[in-house]
Amino acid sequence: MTMMVETYAEGRQRDSGVGEMYTIATLGSHSALQILKGAHDEGFKTLAIANRETERLYRSFAFVDEVITIDKYSDFMLLVPELEKRKIIIVPHGSFVAYLSLEDHKKMRIPYFGNKAVLDWEASRELQRDWLLRAGLKLPRQFKTGAEIDRPVIVKLYGAQGGKGYMFLRDAMDFEERASLLARQNYILQEYIIGVPLYIHYFYSSLTGKLEIMSMDRRYETNVDSLGRIPSQAQAGMDVDPSYVVVGNQPISLRESMLAEAYRMGEDVVRVSQEICGPKGLFGAFCIETIITPDTNFYIMEISARIVAGTNLFIDGSPYSYLNYSEPMSTGRRIAREIKNALLSNSLDTILDDSTIQHH
Amino acid sequence: MTMMVETYAEGRQRDSGVGEMYTIATLGSHSALQILKGAHDEGFKTLAIANRETERLYRSFAFVDEVITIDKYSDFMLLVPELEKRKIIIVPHGSFVAYLSLEDHKKMRIPYFGNKAVLDWEASRELQRDWLLRAGLKLPRQFKTGAEIDRPVIVKLYGAQGGKGYMFLRDAMDFEERASLLARQNYILQEYIIGVPLYIHYFYSSLTGKLEIMSMDRRYETNVDSLGRIPSQAQAGMDVDPSYVVVGNQPISLRESMLAEAYRMGEDVVRVSQEICGPKGLFGAFCIETIITPDTNFYIMEISARIVAGTNLFIDGSPYSYLNYSEPMSTGRRIAREIKNALLSNSLDTILDDSTIQHH
Amino acid sequence: MTMMVETYAEGRQRDSGVGEMYTIATLGSHSALQILKGAHDEGFKTLAIANRETERLYRSFAFVDEVITIDKYSDFMLLVPELEKRKIIIVPHGSFVAYLSLEDHKKMRIPYFGNKAVLDWEASRELQRDWLLRAGLKLPRQFKTGAEIDRPVIVKLYGAQGGKGYMFLRDAMDFEERASLLARQNYILQEYIIGVPLYIHYFYSSLTGKLEIMSMDRRYETNVDSLGRIPSQAQAGMDVDPSYVVVGNQPISLRESMLAEAYRMGEDVVRVSQEICGPKGLFGAFCIETIITPDTNFYIMEISARIVAGTNLFIDGSPYSYLNYSEPMSTGRRIAREIKNALLSNSLDTILDDSTIQHH
Repeated sequence: MTMMVETYAEGRQRDSGVGEMYTIATLGSHSALQILKGAHDEGFKTLAIANRETERLYRSFAFVDEVITIDKYSDFMLLVPELEKRKIIIVPHGSFVAYLSLEDHKKMRIPYFGNKAVLDWEASRELQRDWLLRAGLKLPRQFKTGAEIDRPVIVKLYGAQGGKGYMFLRDAMDFEERASLLARQNYILQEYIIGVPLYIHYFYSSLTGKLEIMSMDRRYETNVDSLGRIPSQAQAGMDVDPSYVVVGNQPISLRESMLAEAYRMGEDVVRVSQEICGPKGLFGAFCIETIITPDTNFYIMEISARIVAGTNLFIDGSPYSYLNYSEPMSTGRRIAREIKNALLSNSLDTILDDSTIQHH
Repeated sequence: MTMMVETYAEGRQRDSGVGEMYTIATLGSHSALQILKGAHDEGFKTLAIANRETERLYRSFAFVDEVITIDKYSDFMLLVPELEKRKIIIVPHGSFVAYLSLEDHKKMRIPYFGNKAVLDWEASRELQRDWLLRAGLKLPRQFKTGAEIDRPVIVKLYGAQGGKGYMFLRDAMDFEERASLLARQNYILQEYIIGVPLYIHYFYSSLTGKLEIMSMDRRYETNVDSLGRIPSQAQAGMDVDPSYVVVGNQPISLRESMLAEAYRMGEDVVRVSQEICGPKGLFGAFCIETIITPDTNFYIMEISARIVAGTNLFIDGSPYSYLNYSEPMSTGRRIAREIKNALLSNSLDTILDDSTIQHH
Repeated sequence: MTMMVETYAEGRQRDSGVGEMYTIATLGSHSALQILKGAHDEGFKTLAIANRETERLYRSFAFVDEVITIDKYSDFMLLVPELEKRKIIIVPHGSFVAYLSLEDHKKMRIPYFGNKAVLDWEASRELQRDWLLRAGLKLPRQFKTGAEIDRPVIVKLYGAQGGKGYMFLRDAMDFEERASLLARQNYILQEYIIGVPLYIHYFYSSLTGKLEIMSMDRRYETNVDSLGRIPSQAQAGMDVDPSYVVVGNQPISLRESMLAEAYRMGEDVVRVSQEICGPKGLFGAFCIETIITPDTNFYIMEISARIVAGTNLFIDGSPYSYLNYSEPMSTGRRIAREIKNALLSNSLDTILDDSTIQHH
């Protein structure tokens, strides 16, 4: 079925007609530009749901056919009845998870690219840990109480978004000093792994059963990625606390001898997802966030079960996606290509969440 | 008028004829390769003015039609009379500012892409600060005297180029120790903002009135970007002073939820420039140099009113320019495209400095 | 002869027929994907020699026509008799050097892209140093004994691969403490240069006599590239030793005013190689690994006489290669293009190691 891709979808021509009937829609944030550009390039109409601050930006691009402006992104649910009446497919990204509750996600009946059942396994840090362990991945140690801490840890508040609310603690004493800050909060205490971060962007096609590595990045975090530029003696006097707020991304390529392992990790995560989240499992775009230690082991920090912002580095294609496509293939465009392939092979149901399948 | 771009200028074909009559010229340094490659791809003839060290490099590229060699770049003014006789358009970059005085800039009558009136507002740190404040941007605090210093600062010598002559000071005492070094020098004392650097490359078209974000980078500075690789205990013993000499650039993408703000900053800077530098204001390529703090605020370090070296990462296109163009669109090529569009719509005067408009 | 490139080889069409008769083969590791993708795009058949762990990865790509699986890469020599019977050209990369001895390299009679005589000059740290000094390059100081050490040094074990076995030493005392660890090992003690790393990827064509800069990167090393993210006070307590294991690469562009010097270094290295390694000298892909100091000097750490892994960032082309080619030109593809040009101009012998020239 891989051949299909080559046959159906020669790039930018909007002549297939299949896409023209559908509008791909998403919230104007996170990776919306990439998703809508990709949708346009595959022949779909495009819709950005923006707010007052962002509508001007999204209107400035020719590939955005329509912008609907709402007051704040959490008002999205008010739009749902209207959107449900149109021939729309929603491509979700991180801002959906940030602004919509799990319940709201499940209530929506707009055709939704992806499997909502995965959301439960991703949202709970315990379930996610189970999933990754069952897939045989290496995870950092977790500590249940501050007293257990015997090495540096990262504190991650529940629901922390974009690295906000992460905290570095040197030891148990450090924990004691912040105890009042952490009281009445839910958080996990994760071993601080010393190594370099690498985020691997995958795409799994449930139409072809094939996994692709799309691209890779590392996050660009403030202020932690600026600390190294301050001489250590000066740092001592300045007493800066590291923060991990993600404000961008940087491209990385992985040593090729480690690529087979990266590929295997992706396949294992998909395989286990099909056991735990219903037969559809995890499909489409996802990302495994790793730290690589000097013994070249991957430690897994987290999994994101949809397109991640790091793919924004590769709107015009990546060295990895170029191995599979002779044209610039972003993850956003790959999603649109999958939807198009599903339409052309009459298997749209395969790539939509079950609750959003319409009886056409 | 945006449509024009699509209609006129389909990439590499040199068939429009309009470009062939003109030669795009620049100094062989900084971003000359990108400017001349872009000019060639848009159908112009190209001229590099090189020195003995660089002529071999520029001659090695097929898209450089002509190389004129001078002894040193500051000899450029000697060439001017000859160049004024030809059908040449100068595209200036950072090395023009480095090697030519403001007076020389203004004396030249060669058709010059850009508005020289902006140079005064850029060259003076006080005027530049005024400009950016009027545009509503956040600037780091400035200290007038060493005694005022109550936090780490960056000392920037007047006329410092490429980060040379920047100095990090921890506190007022540190200032005292360097006092003799700084005596009889002109400098500013700028609050050291702790956060990650991001340089945003814009292009404002005075033909269409539209602003585009072309690409983004961070500088690669020696030795400061190598300090983090030295363990802090070892640094203590080595007593290294950070230096900020720019020797390269690294690509970055910005969190999409901050992109609307980045776009607005560009528009505000252009709008104010039209009030202070004559009606033409700032147009063409420019760059806002920011530090992003953990509260996701942009602090503005500086503005560069023309193409910056960070765009050299994107000679074959960038993820951002791909949103607007279906072909590799560097900033250098975007400039040539603008000149071509001006020629085709008979509005060359719109994009040249007023003092260099010729009565054709 | 540069024109030839344009005439012969318009991209992805496999119609030239010349390539179809030959298979480009390499070990499934290091930069094999790039080499084989490039070979495919230039019209060659492709063969990956993989092991049990990697065969699945290489089979997943459509441009890999054939995969032969061996138990371990050092078993490669067992395959040689079979490969010698076929119309195969080997493109070597770093893993050949890692897994095959110099003797085995020389024993092989499979047509081999490159000049094996260069291997001796590269493998011996003394000969390599001679070579680079004769080319006029700046090298870090070397210390013969621990007692001589008067500044921080890097210890490099002989045969260290991918940065494994590098060690940072602050001073002579630090050396004493590790003395037992270093006893009975062969190593060099190299001055630790404080500055930013830059790896420059070149391609020298012995068909045209022209040198090209293909791309640039810096290595991504664990754990040393993560140290800067740990606040200096915390580092003190954690007592982390830096390690330099290469697990990836990051793209960099070089300040254009330093590019002519980078070009000259490449030419000088090639020129001297033609004096010391026989008339063919060094040709094809190579890399000079530098540290740039605040006075903008390049210090040379090492030379790699073939394609390096940093080029994997540019499988879909680089800003530098785009200056010479209007299509995505990776170093891997450039190699295949060179082989194709040799075939078309009946000069295959020019680009193969002398010992592997067959009498066709």
